[in-house]
Amino acid sequence: MPERMPKELEPAGGNGLLHRRLFLKGGAAALGAGSLGLMTAAQAKERPPWMRAPGRALSGYGSRSPYEDHVQRRPLSAKGTDGAGGSWTPLEALEGMITPNPLHFERHHSGIPNIDPGRHRLLIHGLVKRDLFFDMDALSRYPMVSRTQFIECSGNSYLAGLPEQPVNATCGELHGLVACSEWTGVPLSILLDEAGVDPAAQWILAEGADAAAMSRSVPLAKAMDDALLAIYQNGERLRPDNGYPVRLFLPGYEGNMSVKWLRRIKVTAAPAMTRDETAKYSDLMPDGRTLLFTFPMDVKSVITSPAPGLELAGPGLYQISGMAWSGLGRIAKVEVSADRGATWAEAALSEPVLDKAVTRFRMAWRWNGSPSVIMSRAMDETGATQPTRDALIAAKGRKFAYHYNAIQAWGIDGAGHVANVYA
Amino acid sequence: MPERMPKELEPAGGNGLLHRRLFLKGGAAALGAGSLGLMTAAQAKERPPWMRAPGRALSGYGSRSPYEDHVQRRPLSAKGTDGAGGSWTPLEALEGMITPNPLHFERHHSGIPNIDPGRHRLLIHGLVKRDLFFDMDALSRYPMVSRTQFIECSGNSYLAGLPEQPVNATCGELHGLVACSEWTGVPLSILLDEAGVDPAAQWILAEGADAAAMSRSVPLAKAMDDALLAIYQNGERLRPDNGYPVRLFLPGYEGNMSVKWLRRIKVTAAPAMTRDETAKYSDLMPDGRTLLFTFPMDVKSVITSPAPGLELAGPGLYQISGMAWSGLGRIAKVEVSADRGATWAEAALSEPVLDKAVTRFRMAWRWNGSPSVIMSRAMDETGATQPTRDALIAAKGRKFAYHYNAIQAWGIDGAGHVANVYA
Repeated sequence: MPERMPKELEPAGGNGLLHRRLFLKGGAAALGAGSLGLMTAAQAKERPPWMRAPGRALSGYGSRSPYEDHVQRRPLSAKGTDGAGGSWTPLEALEGMITPNPLHFERHHSGIPNIDPGRHRLLIHGLVKRDLFFDMDALSRYPMVSRTQFIECSGNSYLAGLPEQPVNATCGELHGLVACSEWTGVPLSILLDEAGVDPAAQWILAEGADAAAMSRSVPLAKAMDDALLAIYQNGERLRPDNGYPVRLFLPGYEGNMSVKWLRRIKVTAAPAMTRDETAKYSDLMPDGRTLLFTFPMDVKSVITSPAPGLELAGPGLYQISGMAWSGLGRIAKVEVSADRGATWAEAALSEPVLDKAVTRFRMAWRWNGSPSVIMSRAMDETGATQPTRDALIAAKGRKFAYHYNAIQAWGIDGAGHVANVYA
Repeated sequence: MPERMPKELEPAGGNGLLHRRLFLKGGAAALGAGSLGLMTAAQAKERPPWMRAPGRALSGYGSRSPYEDHVQRRPLSAKGTDGAGGSWTPLEALEGMITPNPLHFERHHSGIPNIDPGRHRLLIHGLVKRDLFFDMDALSRYPMVSRTQFIECSGNSYLAGLPEQPVNATCGELHGLVACSEWTGVPLSILLDEAGVDPAAQWILAEGADAAAMSRSVPLAKAMDDALLAIYQNGERLRPDNGYPVRLFLPGYEGNMSVKWLRRIKVTAAPAMTRDETAKYSDLMPDGRTLLFTFPMDVKSVITSPAPGLELAGPGLYQISGMAWSGLGRIAKVEVSADRGATWAEAALSEPVLDKAVTRFRMAWRWNGSPSVIMSRAMDETGATQPTRDALIAAKGRKFAYHYNAIQAWGIDGAGHVANVYA
């Protein structure tokens, strides 16, 4: 037994939730999750085989452990294609705020173009005083900024809640069209200022250099506010699956507007009404109308551990860990329930909590081994809060596919198996 | 000519340095670096070959563009070995705060062990009430925290300044034993609390599971303060070259104390005086004495662009971009000179400026094409400032190899070639 029974181990919510001060410095004592007692000290001191001979060589470009090869995105493509679809980030295998580049989700409309950066050009034209062309060398000489922010496909998560019966899939397969990176690039406003925007302009059209020429209209106000021409992601040059050599990045807006492989920006008076903003990326409402131009992604959270794809090894202490984000600003609060929403307790937020970034939240939980339902709900600095699934369906029906942000419930059975449930 | 001649384009220092407000929202206008005028609008609108057929497929684990394959660490190993040495991060090819995992520098003493995480054990013993053993599953159930912080080999940079004549090498080859990551893991204090530390304890010994059993003594105060058992790096599990499946992480301390492949922590009354803290990682001073246990890394900065390994394409606007960090806390200020230190101007710091993290600084520079010397000097929140090379050598001589943190000067000749110079 511990010398002191600290306040941290007092319940903060029903069914075993412990107070978040457990995550603060000096706040923990005597959790007892890890003292296995399965070995003697002599056995533990014995040298394992990998200490008996020199290890592998230094290298120019590192790779991960073969024991982690199973951590993969899940690609899913339209029939007859291998590049028109998406691949989902395995959220349940990851931690922290940053998504590693090889596991950042994908969404392509006609595969990944293999662009020679030496031949790539970006054109700015339309309602401007002078057309501008940039090659990558020229673009890279402009002042840059770095920002750690999420990007989320507007079609993320609807399969987790809209079907009649809960879909049986991993956390990443249900919610993995979201990722967070440090983006570095040139503010678009600098280049638009240089081109000289006509007072009649209200929109821009951004077009990618893929075979689909994927294009979206963006309000000029957003383009002049915080839009970036992103060249680096998490320190290195963008990868082809994220728009190499340059993409548009629109913080907080639905992912496909952050046009990859950016080749053209046309300044316009009105939205272009492209296929990608009319036939797609629009939402049919119960009254028969369609929502267009729903740009910011709503406040959302999901518990990534425990979550489907992971198993609980038996009763005892666990860390509940998850991600929260909002296209409207910073996350203000995340609450967690371990008793199907009867009681809620506030989770610890990992600092720094950044504007339009993924915020990692954590909570300690002493699971007693009985069937349980765990949930999280996030609130952002504007006061927006995640709706329940019932409330979201009451408001938007079941025929929409974008901007699904309801509270996610995970059911844990007595054997420690975790599944998507409606609660 | 621009309609408005903004203050941003007024000089902030000699030889073309422009004011840092250029990097703030709305602060730029009419820089003219990028309008090439080399194409007609019709040429720019013509579709490149990669738009004429569907692109590559979605995938489970992404890779970078083949056009970026030349961006590599530079491995250098002791004679007769391929794993006892280091590999240097190519700083001149990177941007932002985060170092991508495959390019994080390496420093191994006997290669990289290929550890089966299912068989790895961590022992805590010595001056404790009870020995504790952890496997990775048990360790992963404890409360975790995430922190974005740098790690730097104490032997970084001395080749940039101690030889009689400046060494001709790239920025990364001279200063690339530093990197910054988001580390996620379990605070060591939680496990030491659980083991029950004896009041006589003052130190811990940390030992790695590599063939060298690399081991270092760490003051107990640091272990109880902010030491982490890091399991994730930039969102994914640690890679083998950074200590998979678990490493010690000591924010701000010289890199090799953050023992990789951590297998054993022994709580002790006195430092163990291991080979790695006596024969190595100690500094011979001019008076014949040796400095031991010089833990925190000093305040430092380096301009990564323009820098050796990159060339300037001709006169005009450039971004000066670099990294600053301090083992003592946050970076308070970075100043840049473009006239060999005659005048200095304050650079823009990329937010968020975090404790013991790399901070990216940037400055705009209008190069007139004449030979120039550019430099940066950082100050941290404790008031510590980078010394000049002359001052550092006057204080410490030339026989030390660790904790070299003098101001770095890059010389740029009339052809735009950049080289290490003493100034």
